Amino acid sequence: MRMERASQRISQVARVVTDPSVAAGYCTDFTGRWRGSTPLVALPGDTAEVAEVMRICAEEGVPVVPQGGNTGLVGGGVPMGGEVVLSLRRLTGLGPVDVAAQQVTAGAGVVLSALQRHVRAAGLDFGVDFAARDAATVGGMIATNAGGERVLRYGTTRANVVGVEAVLADGSVVSRLGGLAKDNTGFELPFTGSEGTLGVVTAARLRLVPLLERRATALLGLPGVPAALEALAVLRSLDSLEMAEFFQPEGLRLVRGHTGLPSPTREEHAVYLLVECAAPRDPAPELHAVLESLHASEVVVAADAADRHRLWRYREAHTEAINARGVPVKLDVALPLGELPGFLDDLPSLVGGCELYLFGHLAEGNLHINLIGGQDPTDAVLRRVALSGGSISAEHGVGRAKTPWLHLSRSPAELAAFRAVKQALDPRHLLNPGVLVP
Amino acid sequence: MRMERASQRISQVARVVTDPSVAAGYCTDFTGRWRGSTPLVALPGDTAEVAEVMRICAEEGVPVVPQGGNTGLVGGGVPMGGEVVLSLRRLTGLGPVDVAAQQVTAGAGVVLSALQRHVRAAGLDFGVDFAARDAATVGGMIATNAGGERVLRYGTTRANVVGVEAVLADGSVVSRLGGLAKDNTGFELPFTGSEGTLGVVTAARLRLVPLLERRATALLGLPGVPAALEALAVLRSLDSLEMAEFFQPEGLRLVRGHTGLPSPTREEHAVYLLVECAAPRDPAPELHAVLESLHASEVVVAADAADRHRLWRYREAHTEAINARGVPVKLDVALPLGELPGFLDDLPSLVGGCELYLFGHLAEGNLHINLIGGQDPTDAVLRRVALSGGSISAEHGVGRAKTPWLHLSRSPAELAAFRAVKQALDPRHLLNPGVLVP
Repeated sequence: MRMERASQRISQVARVVTDPSVAAGYCTDFTGRWRGSTPLVALPGDTAEVAEVMRICAEEGVPVVPQGGNTGLVGGGVPMGGEVVLSLRRLTGLGPVDVAAQQVTAGAGVVLSALQRHVRAAGLDFGVDFAARDAATVGGMIATNAGGERVLRYGTTRANVVGVEAVLADGSVVSRLGGLAKDNTGFELPFTGSEGTLGVVTAARLRLVPLLERRATALLGLPGVPAALEALAVLRSLDSLEMAEFFQPEGLRLVRGHTGLPSPTREEHAVYLLVECAAPRDPAPELHAVLESLHASEVVVAADAADRHRLWRYREAHTEAINARGVPVKLDVALPLGELPGFLDDLPSLVGGCELYLFGHLAEGNLHINLIGGQDPTDAVLRRVALSGGSISAEHGVGRAKTPWLHLSRSPAELAAFRAVKQALDPRHLLNPGVLVP
Repeated sequence: MRMERASQRISQVARVVTDPSVAAGYCTDFTGRWRGSTPLVALPGDTAEVAEVMRICAEEGVPVVPQGGNTGLVGGGVPMGGEVVLSLRRLTGLGPVDVAAQQVTAGAGVVLSALQRHVRAAGLDFGVDFAARDAATVGGMIATNAGGERVLRYGTTRANVVGVEAVLADGSVVSRLGGLAKDNTGFELPFTGSEGTLGVVTAARLRLVPLLERRATALLGLPGVPAALEALAVLRSLDSLEMAEFFQPEGLRLVRGHTGLPSPTREEHAVYLLVECAAPRDPAPELHAVLESLHASEVVVAADAADRHRLWRYREAHTEAINARGVPVKLDVALPLGELPGFLDDLPSLVGGCELYLFGHLAEGNLHINLIGGQDPTDAVLRRVALSGGSISAEHGVGRAKTPWLHLSRSPAELAAFRAVKQALDPRHLLNPGVLVP
């Protein structure tokens, strides 16, 4: 009854979708594991309409699931309880690029690749980049504090946001789009990483970085993870270092079988480290000088752009090669660097009969663990991660999928503080109920 | 009575100071404008003792003023209501530098210059630096989100903290010292910039950056602020750009009179822009190439380190030259870059009979406005700042001094959200009452 009244009122203030066959596309997440339903998808066209929708939902006591590009992997944007879906996709406004301040204002619905095109035309770049760039939106990236390949240089999304505009649970609007890089008039309301549970991000003022088109790439073969960590420590002395991705022989064999690519190295190595530098000048001389000082078993240097893409392919094809092999259980964890070797030693014994394929972002100890076949070993793996002080979710967030294990990464005092902040900003639990702070 | 009992109990769990002549040093801020009093300064030696002190204060209902190096300028760490002072100065622990992760753990009481010495010995640096480095502490820097000269490259303190450990108002401890650069298990509790009102920071895991010892410095003479902003936009294409400080002829004349230094340029210019690049390689060639492409009226390039320090002296001596001239009213504001020229045009008419001396951090539109003599024009200046979407406090925080103007920079919805979060984490208002969220 309340839902019916809310639906009717919402359809008077914003574009809506009620046809179940169309709405279904907003009710399933990227993995297909979470399938919900909704009486109504609201597609407001600006912040004022978002505020109107939220005010109506608050008045009617109707819960809301905010949604961006719907590329999530943990069921964080799916209406599992028949909630209203509040899609921010139509908020695609992009302001002029402020070259002096290195900033731009983007609507929550701006897709990452559209943002990149817009700012690159002005000679700038956005610091965060990852594979879902053609679907993930600015609002979703903020709500999940998206990471990716370039975190070692530019930080996660949190470090690349100057300020946000958001609609609170009661329909009021808080806005920090003025672009002030220094503004110490109080703390930041913690929308970043809150997965839509504290407010609905409608726009953001983003920090930009110089567009660095000169790149140098190399693939290192190393005898083990400790050697890779030693190499990383030296490589990080370069201020041009932008990526340090690693993979292992099992994954490489799968990639070669799937793609038909030849071996990238003469020998097989325990660990492969793919590094890239980027700078306004040619970064190859400084990268090559550092590579010579390392004790890598083998080093393959990209001679040109085609070569760079060829080396990258070994890393990037992991996902498709793994998916072709079977439906994987995917775990996304992070460990303190010092704990990585011990964890990786233990991992095979934890995953039982599963085939194990690993790759990840070495500088953040961020492992993407892919498991095929056998019993689902999630519980054992995440407990082992926690034992080493790691995170049960490095990039993907908690959503609904990880809530049973959240206590492994967060103490009772932290969980109590989360609940208190949630209660403060959304006392009736209208925003994304069941997600992150159940 | 409660205070007496609390004092007695605290003195059983931590070192304390009760002698009024010694305690007085903890009761006056850096400006001397805020003078309070306290029955007891608690000087706990570790996090467990901080938690014990907070638990006792919570049980007795006694309010607490957390304090770091006591270098604040806005009365944010002064016991104006006779509160217990909780000094974090003894938490001076410094962990080993993790070179691979580029991180270190530091106690809240670690002084910035001690942190710098520690991490520089390992070939790394901390991204935040400013003049109070020999007294300001890590905890205070986090509580006030300290800024400084290098924000354009490394961001404010917020961007340089991986995680914090803090004691909440009830004495419970939340801790994120594991050093996970990616950890999306929920939002960040908003201690940074909270000025001791939401929790007591006891330690932090800090992000480090490569130590860049090769530097190139130049002083540009420009015909006005718009020209300086155009030069900045071009200079920012250098990923080695680390500082862009500006000053004006009035301040320069004062500095020259105070120090006896000759003019740094052949002619006098409307705006002086001091820029510095830093890199692992010599950044002079790239800086000089960009300088040639600018339309600066005059460019002075530092030939060596002594020359660099000489150029820096013109900017750095502003504070002492101004203080020698009289006791200034100091305003610390930030404006969107596009609003800077108009604001600076209006400023002289707003400050009435005052002498006006300006300098600041151009990339963040951060002006340090110094006013000597005449009527205090704070209200008129801050209202004009707000009219342009600026911040009434770019670096110094709100404390007690700026609370009457906080509504100029924060909307009613934001202030309501601040109060809600404060209520959630410190329902009895025991932490720094009267500061930031009165």
